[in-house]
Amino acid sequence: MRIIAPASSANLGPGYDVLSVALDGIYDVVDVNVEEGSGISIDVRGRYAEGVPEDPERNSAGIAAAELIRAAGVNVHVHISLRKEIPPSSGLGSSGAGAAGVVYALNRILGLGMDNRSLVEFAGRGERAAAGTAHYDNVTASLLGWFNVVRPEVPPSVVNLRPPRGARISFALAVPIGPRRRGKTKLARELVPHEAPMDLAVWNTASVAMIVSGILMGDVGLLGAGMVDRIVEPARSKMIPGYAKAREAALSAGALGVTISGAGPSMIAVAQNDAVSRKVADAMASAMEEEGTRAIRLISRPGPGCREDKLQGF
Amino acid sequence: MRIIAPASSANLGPGYDVLSVALDGIYDVVDVNVEEGSGISIDVRGRYAEGVPEDPERNSAGIAAAELIRAAGVNVHVHISLRKEIPPSSGLGSSGAGAAGVVYALNRILGLGMDNRSLVEFAGRGERAAAGTAHYDNVTASLLGWFNVVRPEVPPSVVNLRPPRGARISFALAVPIGPRRRGKTKLARELVPHEAPMDLAVWNTASVAMIVSGILMGDVGLLGAGMVDRIVEPARSKMIPGYAKAREAALSAGALGVTISGAGPSMIAVAQNDAVSRKVADAMASAMEEEGTRAIRLISRPGPGCREDKLQGF
Repeated sequence: MRIIAPASSANLGPGYDVLSVALDGIYDVVDVNVEEGSGISIDVRGRYAEGVPEDPERNSAGIAAAELIRAAGVNVHVHISLRKEIPPSSGLGSSGAGAAGVVYALNRILGLGMDNRSLVEFAGRGERAAAGTAHYDNVTASLLGWFNVVRPEVPPSVVNLRPPRGARISFALAVPIGPRRRGKTKLARELVPHEAPMDLAVWNTASVAMIVSGILMGDVGLLGAGMVDRIVEPARSKMIPGYAKAREAALSAGALGVTISGAGPSMIAVAQNDAVSRKVADAMASAMEEEGTRAIRLISRPGPGCREDKLQGF
Repeated sequence: MRIIAPASSANLGPGYDVLSVALDGIYDVVDVNVEEGSGISIDVRGRYAEGVPEDPERNSAGIAAAELIRAAGVNVHVHISLRKEIPPSSGLGSSGAGAAGVVYALNRILGLGMDNRSLVEFAGRGERAAAGTAHYDNVTASLLGWFNVVRPEVPPSVVNLRPPRGARISFALAVPIGPRRRGKTKLARELVPHEAPMDLAVWNTASVAMIVSGILMGDVGLLGAGMVDRIVEPARSKMIPGYAKAREAALSAGALGVTISGAGPSMIAVAQNDAVSRKVADAMASAMEEEGTRAIRLISRPGPGCREDKLQGF
């Protein structure tokens, strides 16, 4: 079974470990085949294959698959073929997409009938290997699509949020290219303060409430106004060369909100339409390049989650 | 001009200083008359008039009126007649309702054309006198009705949230009666921790996102599931005799979520309909009474904000 597993952006600023969005048009292709026997094998190819482990015990998709088939009590061999088209270690949920794709496929192939909370939990266990702790935001977006709220408990509470039809929401991304940093997500998590002053916690809570309201009311201005994180972003943005300049440039180019995508170093901004997003992505990437970091420009709308590739075989 | 100014419940658990709801059918009646001259005069009557200051410099409605007419640069005498039907110092936004009613009336009488953010800001300045800090949650609900998100900045960001038509949301309240405690809100604020551990901040943020989703998607179960506060409630609930028992009793009686209303000591629970709410209010109040505190039982739906009393004169 061939699955399209979309990239995702976690946090959206103040929603650290809580909010995420699936990015349409940026995805890995995950082939999952179940055979007689036991064990898991993985091959990795595609534009961003380099450095992604094929050892199933070190690959998020392999770990998620192992956890799921053990819990389901089935004895099969699972072969996973990942075509990596999402740049790893960039804050776009690359490892989460693979785990999501495999869990989604196995649930269908084996007829397990698992609900969304369980799928998110198993995919999250795969992600844990990459990030050091189980956080479910990226895998939830890859699995369910659109926007999501996750409350970290076991199993996690998950709310899938769909903007009203006709809502205009476009994202601009700037993805720095450079030497891959192993353990980047773990390092980025270590920068998060252990405690938050109450006034900043209140600010962030209100901001997340504004984002959720903006999504469900189809108000992209409100969504953007909520994307101001006063707890995690101030600590993490220091890791990103040219962050402050890129942020200003994005707002000058028409962005309604700007923040770090996931654990970074990519930046994400929201705008009213794709034409503005293109300018915003270029403004952010140019600002990064002035600081000596080359960056890819991407634009994306919110989109659906994992799904079977209907064109397989053509 | 005679204004109906509804009671309100702030926080809804994790939304400390962020979320609020207007309570239908529980309200103060605020008569505001503008005459030649200058200064402000207040008289207070009604069931809960006792102890409410008539000194305009010590009354939230008087302070809000003074701030507003000074900012508007008009020279008039304002007479305010408050009929207090909301029990003061109980966590139902009693002082906020008066301030909201006066600001709402003066904006109309004087034709100031103020927007919601400005109205909330002026009403909040009145509230500050009662609580020690400017917090806008109660006044926003009294002014705008239904559910609200407030982000504390100057002027505050305000999002008015209306559940979809046909959504079934009913609140149960238990309001302890006892000797009035002056400075209760200030004391309750002092119990709030200055810092929140990050994992609890994440939990509360996710919970608020669930509440906002529940409101806008018309899912009262989701709203109730979000009403779990891991930061403020654990500290404040110790002030309320029989809190833990009352909480358990409410859930056993069918409540979908339970928490402290505002700064307390009232408790608020949410249920699917008024019949369940009646049982829940009784269960909470009975549990409080077993601890020796008499309590009023109330039920309410979310309702509209300040409005002119059309029956005036009949």
